[in-house]
Amino acid sequence: MPPHVLLCGSLSWAQEECQELFRGVAEVLHLDSPSRDEFFADCKPGGKYDAVVGIYRNNLSRGYIGVFDKELIAHLPSSLKWIAHQGAGYDNIDAQACKARGITISNTPGAVDDATATTALYLMISALRHFAQAERDLRAGNWKYAHNAGSAHDLTGRTLAILGLGGIGLRFAELAHAFPMRVVYHSRNRNPEAPEWCQYFDAERLDEMLTQADVLSVHVPLRPDTVGFVDERMIRKLKKGAVIVNTARGKVIDEDAMIRALEDGHLGGVGLDVYPNEPNINPRLLEFKNATLLPHMGASTGDTMKKMEVRALTNLRDFVMCGTCADIVPECR
Amino acid sequence: MPPHVLLCGSLSWAQEECQELFRGVAEVLHLDSPSRDEFFADCKPGGKYDAVVGIYRNNLSRGYIGVFDKELIAHLPSSLKWIAHQGAGYDNIDAQACKARGITISNTPGAVDDATATTALYLMISALRHFAQAERDLRAGNWKYAHNAGSAHDLTGRTLAILGLGGIGLRFAELAHAFPMRVVYHSRNRNPEAPEWCQYFDAERLDEMLTQADVLSVHVPLRPDTVGFVDERMIRKLKKGAVIVNTARGKVIDEDAMIRALEDGHLGGVGLDVYPNEPNINPRLLEFKNATLLPHMGASTGDTMKKMEVRALTNLRDFVMCGTCADIVPECR
Repeated sequence: MPPHVLLCGSLSWAQEECQELFRGVAEVLHLDSPSRDEFFADCKPGGKYDAVVGIYRNNLSRGYIGVFDKELIAHLPSSLKWIAHQGAGYDNIDAQACKARGITISNTPGAVDDATATTALYLMISALRHFAQAERDLRAGNWKYAHNAGSAHDLTGRTLAILGLGGIGLRFAELAHAFPMRVVYHSRNRNPEAPEWCQYFDAERLDEMLTQADVLSVHVPLRPDTVGFVDERMIRKLKKGAVIVNTARGKVIDEDAMIRALEDGHLGGVGLDVYPNEPNINPRLLEFKNATLLPHMGASTGDTMKKMEVRALTNLRDFVMCGTCADIVPECR
Repeated sequence: MPPHVLLCGSLSWAQEECQELFRGVAEVLHLDSPSRDEFFADCKPGGKYDAVVGIYRNNLSRGYIGVFDKELIAHLPSSLKWIAHQGAGYDNIDAQACKARGITISNTPGAVDDATATTALYLMISALRHFAQAERDLRAGNWKYAHNAGSAHDLTGRTLAILGLGGIGLRFAELAHAFPMRVVYHSRNRNPEAPEWCQYFDAERLDEMLTQADVLSVHVPLRPDTVGFVDERMIRKLKKGAVIVNTARGKVIDEDAMIRALEDGHLGGVGLDVYPNEPNINPRLLEFKNATLLPHMGASTGDTMKKMEVRALTNLRDFVMCGTCADIVPECR
C-alpha cells in the first residue's frame, strides 16, 4: 500500500492535479471530518487516516478541526512524520509538541515575502501620509476634513527600523530603499544577506536604534519568547510621532501599551494587518484617526497563494520521497 | 521706491522670514482683499497693489479671489510681469491670457515629484491588492467580507503603463521598478532621462502599449488639448481587469467612460486622487467596491509644502532680481 498524505484546508488546485503531483509517491486523501472529535476518531488505528505519513495544512483547516495544538498533535496517527504548512507563520502548530513526537514541520517562507512586504509598504505610506484617514473623511462627505499637511510626512529620507530581518523584512528593506529611506534593523543575529546600506543594531544597541526610528516595522515570528516583545518600554523609546507597522503577528506587540501610546500622542499612527485575537479587533483601535487596519491579508493574492501552495505541496512530496525538504522550520532542524 | 511683490495664498513661513528673503529686492505685500471685486479695485492705478511686479500664489487663494482666469488676468496691475505659482499643475492660471499680456508664469515642478509619485504608488497597491475595500469591510464589522484573494494581484512582474513621463512619472517609474514591475510609457516625446528599462511607445504605438498594461497611471498636465485625453477608446484598449490610477487632474480622464468601464467590469478598479469638479465627487464613484479615493492630497506633506514654498518664493525673487527663473512654464518660454 502506498503511503497516505492528507490535505487539510482548501487548495486552488483541482483534485486531479494533486493526484497527478503525488502519482507513484503517495495516495492523496482530503480532510472530510466535520469536527475536531470526528477527526480524532478518524486518526485512530483502523480509522481512515491511520496510514497517513504527511499532512498538508493551511489556517483554513482551523474552522473544521481547530489549531494544531498539543492535544491535536497527540491524536495524530502514529504513522505521521511530516506536516507541510502553507504559510510563513506556523504559530498555529505546536512545534515543541511535534518535535517531542518526532514530527517534522515545514513552512513556505520565501513565497510570502513579496506580498507581505508590499502590505507593509502600503501600511507605512498610509500611516506617514494619513491616506486611509483622508479616504474615510472623503467618503463621509468631508473633503480634507481632518487633513493637516504639516503632520503628514514624506517617506524619503526618513528612518525605517525593521524588527526581524528574515525574508519579509529583507524584501521590505529593498522596497523602502528605493525612495530611499534610511533602513536599520535588529534581529537576534546579524543577517549575512543584509545589504551594506542596512545597518545592524544588536540587542545592546536596540534602544539606540529605536530612538532614531520614524517607523518601526515588526517582522518577528510569534513564539513563546516573542509574545509582547514590542512592549511599553520599547514603544516609549521611539521618537514622538513615530508610527508602528505590523504585518507579522498581533501578539508580538503589547496591544495595551500601543493603544496607550496612541491615546497620549506618543505614536503618530499605526498600520496593522494583524491583531491578538483575530478576527476580533479591539474596538479602541477603530477610534484612532491615523490607524490603517487591514484584515490579515498580507500575503493574500492569487499569485502568492499559488506560490505557497506549490511550495507546500512540493515540500510534502519531498518529505515522502526523500525524508526531508528545503523548508524545515528552525525548531525541527 | 522698491518694486512690490504680492503673496496670494497661505504660507507656512513667518512674515519676517519672507521680508528677510526679499530684503533689498522688493517690498512684500500680503493679500488682504476680502473678495474678488475688492481685489480688482485694489489692483487699479492708485490702489494698494498698483506697483506690484510679481505675485506668489497657491490654490488656496481661490477661496478669496477666485482662479486666475482671463477676467482676473485682465484686472491685474499694469506693472505686473511675473506670477510664481506654488505647485506643479497651474491649470488655475490662464497661461494664454498671461502670455498675451506679457506676464511670465513659473511653477514648482520638481518639488512635488516624490510625494505625488508616492501617492500614485499607494493607489496602485490599494487597487491591485483591494486594500482600501478590505479596510472598509473591517471597519463595518465584516472581517474579510468581500475579499477574494484570487482577484487580488501582486505588483511584481506586472506591467505599469505611465501616461506622461515628466518628473512625477519618472519618479513613479523608479518606485515601481523596485519590485520590479515592467514599466512602459507614452509621452508626446521620448524623455531623454528615461532609464533603459522604461520602454517608450509613441502615438502610433499607444494602443499596443495599452493592451499590455495591468495598470495605467495618468501623469499628463491638464491643458485644453488634454481634456478627456483618456477616453472610452483608450480605456477599452486596456486589458480586462486593469486598473487606472490618476494623481494628475480629474478632467484628463473622461469620467463617464471610466465609470461605464467600472460598471461592466472591464476595469478591475481605480485609485484616484483627483476629480473633474473638486471638491465634489461623482457619487457613482463611491459605490464601486474597488475604488480608492483620496481628496487631492498627492503632494500634501509638510516636507513637500516647504520645498514648494521655498521654490516658488525663490522663483519670485529670481524674477525680480534677474528678470527670469529656472521654472518658467512651457507656454511662456
